Amino acid sequence: MIGTEICLIKSSPVPSATPENSNMDTLININLDHGDPVMYESYWRKIGNMCDITFNGYESLSYFANGKSLCWFLESKLEEEIRRLHNVVGNAIVDDYYVVIGNGSSQLIMAALYALSPTNQPHPINIVAAAPFYSSYPEMADFERSELHKWAGDARNYDKDEPYIEFITSPNNPDGVIREPVVNGIQGKLIHDLAYYWPQYTAITSPANHDVMLFTVSKCTGHAGSRIGWALVKDKEVARKMIKFMEVSTIGVSKEAQLRAAKILGVISESCVNPTLDNFFEYSRSLLTDRWQRLRQVVKANDLFVLQKYPLQYCLFTKKFYETHPAFAWLMCKGSEEDCEKLLKGHKLQTRGGEKFGSYSRNVRISMLGKDEDFNIFLQRLEAIIQELPDGN
Amino acid sequence: MIGTEICLIKSSPVPSATPENSNMDTLININLDHGDPVMYESYWRKIGNMCDITFNGYESLSYFANGKSLCWFLESKLEEEIRRLHNVVGNAIVDDYYVVIGNGSSQLIMAALYALSPTNQPHPINIVAAAPFYSSYPEMADFERSELHKWAGDARNYDKDEPYIEFITSPNNPDGVIREPVVNGIQGKLIHDLAYYWPQYTAITSPANHDVMLFTVSKCTGHAGSRIGWALVKDKEVARKMIKFMEVSTIGVSKEAQLRAAKILGVISESCVNPTLDNFFEYSRSLLTDRWQRLRQVVKANDLFVLQKYPLQYCLFTKKFYETHPAFAWLMCKGSEEDCEKLLKGHKLQTRGGEKFGSYSRNVRISMLGKDEDFNIFLQRLEAIIQELPDGN
Repeated sequence: MIGTEICLIKSSPVPSATPENSNMDTLININLDHGDPVMYESYWRKIGNMCDITFNGYESLSYFANGKSLCWFLESKLEEEIRRLHNVVGNAIVDDYYVVIGNGSSQLIMAALYALSPTNQPHPINIVAAAPFYSSYPEMADFERSELHKWAGDARNYDKDEPYIEFITSPNNPDGVIREPVVNGIQGKLIHDLAYYWPQYTAITSPANHDVMLFTVSKCTGHAGSRIGWALVKDKEVARKMIKFMEVSTIGVSKEAQLRAAKILGVISESCVNPTLDNFFEYSRSLLTDRWQRLRQVVKANDLFVLQKYPLQYCLFTKKFYETHPAFAWLMCKGSEEDCEKLLKGHKLQTRGGEKFGSYSRNVRISMLGKDEDFNIFLQRLEAIIQELPDGN
Repeated sequence: MIGTEICLIKSSPVPSATPENSNMDTLININLDHGDPVMYESYWRKIGNMCDITFNGYESLSYFANGKSLCWFLESKLEEEIRRLHNVVGNAIVDDYYVVIGNGSSQLIMAALYALSPTNQPHPINIVAAAPFYSSYPEMADFERSELHKWAGDARNYDKDEPYIEFITSPNNPDGVIREPVVNGIQGKLIHDLAYYWPQYTAITSPANHDVMLFTVSKCTGHAGSRIGWALVKDKEVARKMIKFMEVSTIGVSKEAQLRAAKILGVISESCVNPTLDNFFEYSRSLLTDRWQRLRQVVKANDLFVLQKYPLQYCLFTKKFYETHPAFAWLMCKGSEEDCEKLLKGHKLQTRGGEKFGSYSRNVRISMLGKDEDFNIFLQRLEAIIQELPDGN
């Protein structure tokens, strides 16, 4: 049904869409560092004007939203569409959860750290995540030099008999692996970062029901420019503290972004239940599956690089078996070159090196969500590297 | 020209628009605590569809904005309209300043504190503001318990020989007074919070040209729900650090809110230069002037309350003399009642007590920007209090 128009170049893993000059100096730089989800644009163009939303000058003047939510700045329409989408997809329990809205999930990460950090302790609480971990966690934990919390590194090395907060990112950023808590101590509080727990990336194996779960529009629908994230929070006091954090730091979240996100999430839910519409998740699965197949085909034929492998799991949403196709490729250099980021940078491919994720420089994280042209050039250059280098074949 | 439709009740300072039951228990609570600027709605309704803006589903997906600004998430259209409006109004110099956009000026306050706090010092830098100061400054300085900065109270009592950051809020929140720096030490860094330095509130006496100046759409146009603030920053490194703060805490600012704000600021500039349009600032001056006249008329006739007085100054924007008409009234109780907030609360008028601003409980801050109905009820009840109490007349 979908994917035929956009997956133009199925026959070859390395289409020659953009002929490149072999002189390095003239190559354009391809940025695969950020997970900028512009790949989804083609779906939203196909959908036409279904998502159009108009604001006139006299709307949304107030700081306050129109709902009765504990989160006083949360638009009721957005709350409704968030709950509906989780029910449609089946990736999280929403009943008896508070919804807290944030300026992207970054702010919710900060808010959750604030809310879960004890205020009556002499020392900051330890923040951990199993390596490789999202490269922003250490920075977010420490950049304000808060006395409430401090980054304490790889959860697998955590052996202190002290309170801690563990991030569980599943599927994991950067490596796409499905994760469980690692420390399992009695003094632990958990933040489940489920930004990628959507059917285009991985099989939905059960509705998540953790204490604090974070989601973001950026990775779900591709609308990163809107800066809308949400948390599902079981405990009222934790939700209240997170809301307080939003209040002090930004006095809430843009109403325009909230109302547009409500519209977009509504269209996605509708696309899942109305057979006359292109199912958003099937469409985006098809895009990702195609990219991953082409990348694996390039990488398979050599001894220089290796990619993370993923199990096949039954997806309750699609009722089919599905292999994880993460938003990032976690590429490892097996050959004599030990700095994979440097190697790729030499070919004007900007990626994020493994050390930033608490891992090794042999690894890099590569965005799979960029523009078609950029992805095609990336594959061309990767194939060229493999052919040029002695370890390549 | 303006103000005739909206200033319906000129004849009496206390219109009986909403008849009230004299039984306290049945009175509705009137919230004058927040400075929610919904008063401006009538202007935006009059303007009609000039400010309409439509987003379709495929726009603004990227984290990145389209401009070449140092602030990588700032939409070029918004930057352009911010610079234009300052040039039209003449309230700030924009040439050779960097524009940094934030999720409301709250986030910019936090970002400025972050950017101006030295990172190589053993002790947190002292944050001060002259009392009465904006009630959120102490909370913002301390709520993350940062080792970078700490609240150090009233700038007038500051006598340490240590580095400090001073907030200069002018016109001041809560009392509307035009301010200059108080400490004047050699180790000081200044943040000028100019949220209210617009022609509806006060005379524009010169274009401000301080190192760090903060503005917000909320208080300029009334669109508080958009959460758009901006900073004009002279030093590139300070701007860079503020942008870094935005990046780590929220990865930028909603593109929808930015583009709508650009449209709204554009309409305001246009209204100032195009005589066929209702000048926004004249319209809102008229609203505020009317409310202030009616409030002063109620307060004048008694010995219980007193209001802050303001000088008449020549406004370079309107080319007329104008008295400050602040967004908040700073009301003081002269009588035997020493807790003004409590006194008003007893009449179901919710205000913010002076102690929250580092001042006395005899004072309260009262929003002048709320709905017409609420303002009318407030005046009715205030008059009733004056008539009832022994100190009243």
